[in-house]
Amino acid sequence: MRYGWISFTTDYGVEDPFVGVCHGVIARIAAHARVIDITHGVPSGDIRNGAHALAQSVPYLPPAVHLAVVDPGVGTSRRGVAIVARDGLLVGPDNGLLSPAAEALGGIVAAFELTNSDYRLPKVSSTFHGRDVFAPAAAHLALGVAPEELGPPLHLHDLERISSPAPTVRQGALVTEVLAVDRFGNIQLAASGHTLGDAGFSEGETVTVKVGQARHHGIVGRTFGDVDDGELVVLSDSSGLVALAVNGASAATKLGLPDRHSAQECTITASPTAS
Amino acid sequence: MRYGWISFTTDYGVEDPFVGVCHGVIARIAAHARVIDITHGVPSGDIRNGAHALAQSVPYLPPAVHLAVVDPGVGTSRRGVAIVARDGLLVGPDNGLLSPAAEALGGIVAAFELTNSDYRLPKVSSTFHGRDVFAPAAAHLALGVAPEELGPPLHLHDLERISSPAPTVRQGALVTEVLAVDRFGNIQLAASGHTLGDAGFSEGETVTVKVGQARHHGIVGRTFGDVDDGELVVLSDSSGLVALAVNGASAATKLGLPDRHSAQECTITASPTAS
Amino acid sequence: MRYGWISFTTDYGVEDPFVGVCHGVIARIAAHARVIDITHGVPSGDIRNGAHALAQSVPYLPPAVHLAVVDPGVGTSRRGVAIVARDGLLVGPDNGLLSPAAEALGGIVAAFELTNSDYRLPKVSSTFHGRDVFAPAAAHLALGVAPEELGPPLHLHDLERISSPAPTVRQGALVTEVLAVDRFGNIQLAASGHTLGDAGFSEGETVTVKVGQARHHGIVGRTFGDVDDGELVVLSDSSGLVALAVNGASAATKLGLPDRHSAQECTITASPTAS
Repeated sequence: MRYGWISFTTDYGVEDPFVGVCHGVIARIAAHARVIDITHGVPSGDIRNGAHALAQSVPYLPPAVHLAVVDPGVGTSRRGVAIVARDGLLVGPDNGLLSPAAEALGGIVAAFELTNSDYRLPKVSSTFHGRDVFAPAAAHLALGVAPEELGPPLHLHDLERISSPAPTVRQGALVTEVLAVDRFGNIQLAASGHTLGDAGFSEGETVTVKVGQARHHGIVGRTFGDVDDGELVVLSDSSGLVALAVNGASAATKLGLPDRHSAQECTITASPTAS
Repeated sequence: MRYGWISFTTDYGVEDPFVGVCHGVIARIAAHARVIDITHGVPSGDIRNGAHALAQSVPYLPPAVHLAVVDPGVGTSRRGVAIVARDGLLVGPDNGLLSPAAEALGGIVAAFELTNSDYRLPKVSSTFHGRDVFAPAAAHLALGVAPEELGPPLHLHDLERISSPAPTVRQGALVTEVLAVDRFGNIQLAASGHTLGDAGFSEGETVTVKVGQARHHGIVGRTFGDVDDGELVVLSDSSGLVALAVNGASAATKLGLPDRHSAQECTITASPTAS
Repeated sequence: MRYGWISFTTDYGVEDPFVGVCHGVIARIAAHARVIDITHGVPSGDIRNGAHALAQSVPYLPPAVHLAVVDPGVGTSRRGVAIVARDGLLVGPDNGLLSPAAEALGGIVAAFELTNSDYRLPKVSSTFHGRDVFAPAAAHLALGVAPEELGPPLHLHDLERISSPAPTVRQGALVTEVLAVDRFGNIQLAASGHTLGDAGFSEGETVTVKVGQARHHGIVGRTFGDVDDGELVVLSDSSGLVALAVNGASAATKLGLPDRHSAQECTITASPTAS
């Protein structure tokens, strides 16, 4: 099967030519393919952040080969893989980066280790497999090369997976973890939006949010404008996850979250009723 | 009418997958359309900055559907609109973001509220209308869907507009406002380049520039290299507006402008002649 | 000859609409051409950084017109040029930016000054030749306009060149210069990877690295994971140059390199054997 689209997700940033070079490699092999850059702003080496960015994006993309590289182990013994999911192909390092997206694409059907040198650049560096291994593999797959030609099959239970921390939900309390902080300072949590209702929180209710040492009052709402400027709102975000936001400003700044890497615990509890 | 191009302007940044997801939504609906990303670096929620970035860009673009999203009121009662201008279509929130660009495209001919659910994603979130409402509308317009199919017509005088502050010009003095600060630290002012001449300033003349508490000498010139390294030049920039620049460095740093949001007053006066 | 691809490298950043506007100009002239953005994150005005980013990228790109703009002298007497290399065309300011890439593309065959107003925008600003002069020239070349139509030929020895500092190599010592610092904080040096062997350093050997006042121990290796987390590794990078890296962190931070502009001296010496 031939693919017209390749999606591309990395922690390469946009300051350096890494992304452009990979586009060039794809263009030389599969000139017909159009590349959708999902983001290249994954924090350096943050596999978990990259995995979730990709998984939240793939449902909105056309049928594609999904190329993703967040690869702190480049050049070591970690494997490169092509994963066949029900609704698309994925290419990248076997470090868990691809597994949530594969689930979002209907689940993993098969996986192959990227060992066939016919589908790599002639010279493979030790530090830039995005260019030398993964982009060529994705481009060949887009051309219609069968995934099994890229290398030997892998047992699915041997693939690295990312464990999503399960939230703890009880009446009046939700305990979970910070998953990501976006450009606006919105803080996405590792809990589905419905857990707010499961915990008994209702729209308009004031709750207490604790992240690290910070403790703030927030209001359960639907969107930013449901609270006054500068106030904290707890909502179900556009990916269907619980998020903390501040109307017109950054929740990360208000709550003192230092950077985008944070995997801190977050607790939301019912505020005591004034008596 | 079918459009081959969609331009795309937001404050989404490039750290997160928001832009890529919208590209995906467009690709699924209007695979033929090619997207030109104008910028996604509009400061968060800065409608005025985004409006001017878009207005200054559209004259250089091919015939297109111009999709723009700087939307601090997402999910509230603010409307989504499709605007028919003489030389193109615009899609985004009705908060003034689109109005200067519509003028630059020959003026507004008609406008329609984005209410028809046939041209949205099946599920519309409260916080990401770029993905769920605006990108689908732009893609359908690029496919040739008539703007009036998107929803009911709006009275043109009901559309939100951005008011451009008018500069005060008299002999030897120009009083205006900071419009934008670019990556190089060049400071664009809300005054046409010809106001320099209207105020009687001539090339090579030394003037006094006051922004906030800072007061500096500058020289009226044509380009950065017209003054020595580190010196301030006052020029008519590539958008035909007065700008403050420093050769080889940042005027924003020299003048102590703290960030890109600033709408501070700026006064340029003739320097007293030494006697 | 018609080109299907235009590569695009600048110091315009992604915060402003400069890059998008140039895409628009290209689309209006040469709608068939697809643009590969190599990077727009060259540090402001840093010709040397831009030149090396471009030169390291072109070997991986399809046949293309390579448009590059890092142009602190815009609007002064510096010339605009189109360079014919053996394996592609280059367009940009004549300030040395293009010369290393032209060498990487097989060497300069001919060069022409961009003076023909038929291949510029009707109105040329003093400060944005990327939009008004260089993008239109690149687009016309992609359309098949012959380079000699753009203006008069230039003597090749009149072209500005960037001088690459030559490393000093002797047994047990390599003295060179910092060429670039990437997003990960990896420090690329102006010395080919083979100079490590020429200096007698072998894989696994501990060396002393001195940059500025900082002096650190590092280990000669192949990739980041060859040393423990937080340790310094000296390797031959994906461009075949010596680089300093830290496993899981930033070498620039560890070595106290303040910014990406730095052209500081770097000395690598054999560590004294403990006795």
